[in-house]
Amino acid sequence: MMDMGTRARSASRALGRLSADDRTRGLKAIAEAIRAAAPTILEANVKDMEAARKKGLDAAMLDRLALDEKRVDGIVSGVEAIAALPDPIGRELARWQQPNGLDFARVAVPLGVIGIIYESRPNVTADAGTLCLRSGNAAILRCGSESTRSSHALVDAMRAALKKEGLPEDAIQLVGTTDREAVGHMLSGLDGQIDVIVPRGGRSLVERVQMDARVPVIGHLEGLCHTYVDAAADPQKAVDIVVNAKLRRTGVCGSLETLLVDAKVADTLLPKIAAALTDAGCELRGDAKARAIVPSMKTATEEDWATEYLAPILAVSVVDGIDGALAHIERWSSGHTDAIITEDQAVADRFLATVDSAIVLHNASTQFADGGEFGFGAEIGIATGRIHARGPVGAEQLTIYKYVVRGTGQTRP
Amino acid sequence: MMDMGTRARSASRALGRLSADDRTRGLKAIAEAIRAAAPTILEANVKDMEAARKKGLDAAMLDRLALDEKRVDGIVSGVEAIAALPDPIGRELARWQQPNGLDFARVAVPLGVIGIIYESRPNVTADAGTLCLRSGNAAILRCGSESTRSSHALVDAMRAALKKEGLPEDAIQLVGTTDREAVGHMLSGLDGQIDVIVPRGGRSLVERVQMDARVPVIGHLEGLCHTYVDAAADPQKAVDIVVNAKLRRTGVCGSLETLLVDAKVADTLLPKIAAALTDAGCELRGDAKARAIVPSMKTATEEDWATEYLAPILAVSVVDGIDGALAHIERWSSGHTDAIITEDQAVADRFLATVDSAIVLHNASTQFADGGEFGFGAEIGIATGRIHARGPVGAEQLTIYKYVVRGTGQTRP
Repeated sequence: MMDMGTRARSASRALGRLSADDRTRGLKAIAEAIRAAAPTILEANVKDMEAARKKGLDAAMLDRLALDEKRVDGIVSGVEAIAALPDPIGRELARWQQPNGLDFARVAVPLGVIGIIYESRPNVTADAGTLCLRSGNAAILRCGSESTRSSHALVDAMRAALKKEGLPEDAIQLVGTTDREAVGHMLSGLDGQIDVIVPRGGRSLVERVQMDARVPVIGHLEGLCHTYVDAAADPQKAVDIVVNAKLRRTGVCGSLETLLVDAKVADTLLPKIAAALTDAGCELRGDAKARAIVPSMKTATEEDWATEYLAPILAVSVVDGIDGALAHIERWSSGHTDAIITEDQAVADRFLATVDSAIVLHNASTQFADGGEFGFGAEIGIATGRIHARGPVGAEQLTIYKYVVRGTGQTRP
Repeated sequence: MMDMGTRARSASRALGRLSADDRTRGLKAIAEAIRAAAPTILEANVKDMEAARKKGLDAAMLDRLALDEKRVDGIVSGVEAIAALPDPIGRELARWQQPNGLDFARVAVPLGVIGIIYESRPNVTADAGTLCLRSGNAAILRCGSESTRSSHALVDAMRAALKKEGLPEDAIQLVGTTDREAVGHMLSGLDGQIDVIVPRGGRSLVERVQMDARVPVIGHLEGLCHTYVDAAADPQKAVDIVVNAKLRRTGVCGSLETLLVDAKVADTLLPKIAAALTDAGCELRGDAKARAIVPSMKTATEEDWATEYLAPILAVSVVDGIDGALAHIERWSSGHTDAIITEDQAVADRFLATVDSAIVLHNASTQFADGGEFGFGAEIGIATGRIHARGPVGAEQLTIYKYVVRGTGQTRP
């Protein structure tokens, strides 16, 4: 493991000296190599799936693990999209001069070596490895044990492509899952060789990483997302957006978990929204005011306000206007994504300014909480911490800066 | 302590809702209040100094602790300068639209609650507290025990000013130094109420914080700074810059610790630089090639390349051009500040692009590694980590962002 750290550091230094074109060339070669290795990758995935079924993994986990030709094509397109992204390294983020003539530039540089610990989704292997490459970082990947054969097949193809192009193959390394202590070693930073850890997975994984890491973590906690339907909401927009936010995909972090409806319009609007959701198979759990309007709802308890269901279940509360909505969100939001639906610009502006979540939306579905939808091409996760990066973490967010100061002989008085 | 955390969180929420003008008004009131409280502050400082002398503190520590009227004036001017800074909160950092019409803005927001753990320099109490206020953050301050009376007098004045202006006084709180467990509580994050810790002090303090903190840390490690004098250096600039970088103040993190001289000009240039340094009272420790040219130098061992002297001592190595300089810096630099002196623009560009330190300079003194010199008005420290902020940490670096997404009813396909 320590040796992997040293090799990653050395690759990261080499990467930082490459040109943007070199990194792009490497990414295109990786896309080609994955396409060419599809049969090998699918064969490995068949074995992973067999072992996973024997272990009794549930259907959702099996679905995340499974690959087919279409999904491998999707992985290849993802890498091609990352290859087409503007290279974030070397950009001048700011430039100014001081009265003594010194010229200051803040320039984007890679973070260095990024450790990514994730669950059994083979596509993350390619996404994370290539996003790191795009941003000039070396990646040390640790996949969930169920996807080990698929991930190895992917990484072998990626490394071979780098080698063939004369680029540092140790820019992408995969930690063996048979080494049970590997995660602990990664969290300890491999003797200073890992600059940041990105956990990507469920709450227990992220919490363990945040508890044990001796290295900075770009963490992703749960998305307990709210949508507030204001008195001035357009009724049809409200129905369409809420149904989409809850049900487009219920298992993603941007899915809606709690609906807040302004008491002023709840009598007329809540029955419409509730009917649309119920028709689509969603269970509703309401507070007393909501159940007084839609008696078929189950009763929500305090636990419901704190629950990220990731399932077709929605908690519903009738609140007193925007003040009630802001108070509920301040108390219960996980700071991931919250939305308002209203045609009143002043109320929208107040909501957008006041709610302190990584993403706040006006008149749109919380399911837009996704790097691709932001135009980032791809993301390595959605950060809910307040340090370094917040929201979708794409290639640009995997960089930091340095200051370049140009003088003409200045000494400091 | 837990109560302090809750009050800080509530103050930070209130601060985030204030306008820039409110924060400016609070800062101006604090400057006035410190000016008015000068007699009380100086009286408290006399008691701190008496106790410190009894404890046998060394002259350098006593000097950092001591206040007089001029130093209090300096603190007041510092706060006034921070009040005059542009308010960083609410700025639009980026804005773009996606093809579906969604409008994205990345907007600056405060970090939240910042814990600052520092040594016995009373001015840090005012600097750190007011930089946090400028950036909309609540501060929990823990000063070194020797400055406890001076810091309390300063914080009392600051809080009274906030209260008088109708602003949340818990935006600035001071942790009692009699509570020995307080630092541990702060490092554990006060039950999620502290968002980031800023250690400001010597290496042992920063290392303890980085080891024990359960909260993200914006850390400041040592400044093992290099200056490389290239064959194409202007000789007079080289002498002036090196003398200034080493000797202007030897105790600051931006002071020069290792001089690298290109072998091509060492015969002629090194004697001149060495004479200027020696005349000014600096001890030189050279490698074999340097001592062959200036035999009066002491012998440098490997330990010298790794030492931040913070004293009038300089390590000197003769290197083979820019490649030798880059290799030495990659091996030994602490990633704080490194400089090149040359009139050859291509060599300078290569140095600036390759050296991966927070600050890289061309033809200027490493002593410019300072937030004030960067035009930041003030700094809370100089970050040597690679996450969140790097180099001087001013008001702008004490913020993060959120994404504001404006739609017209978009649902995600």
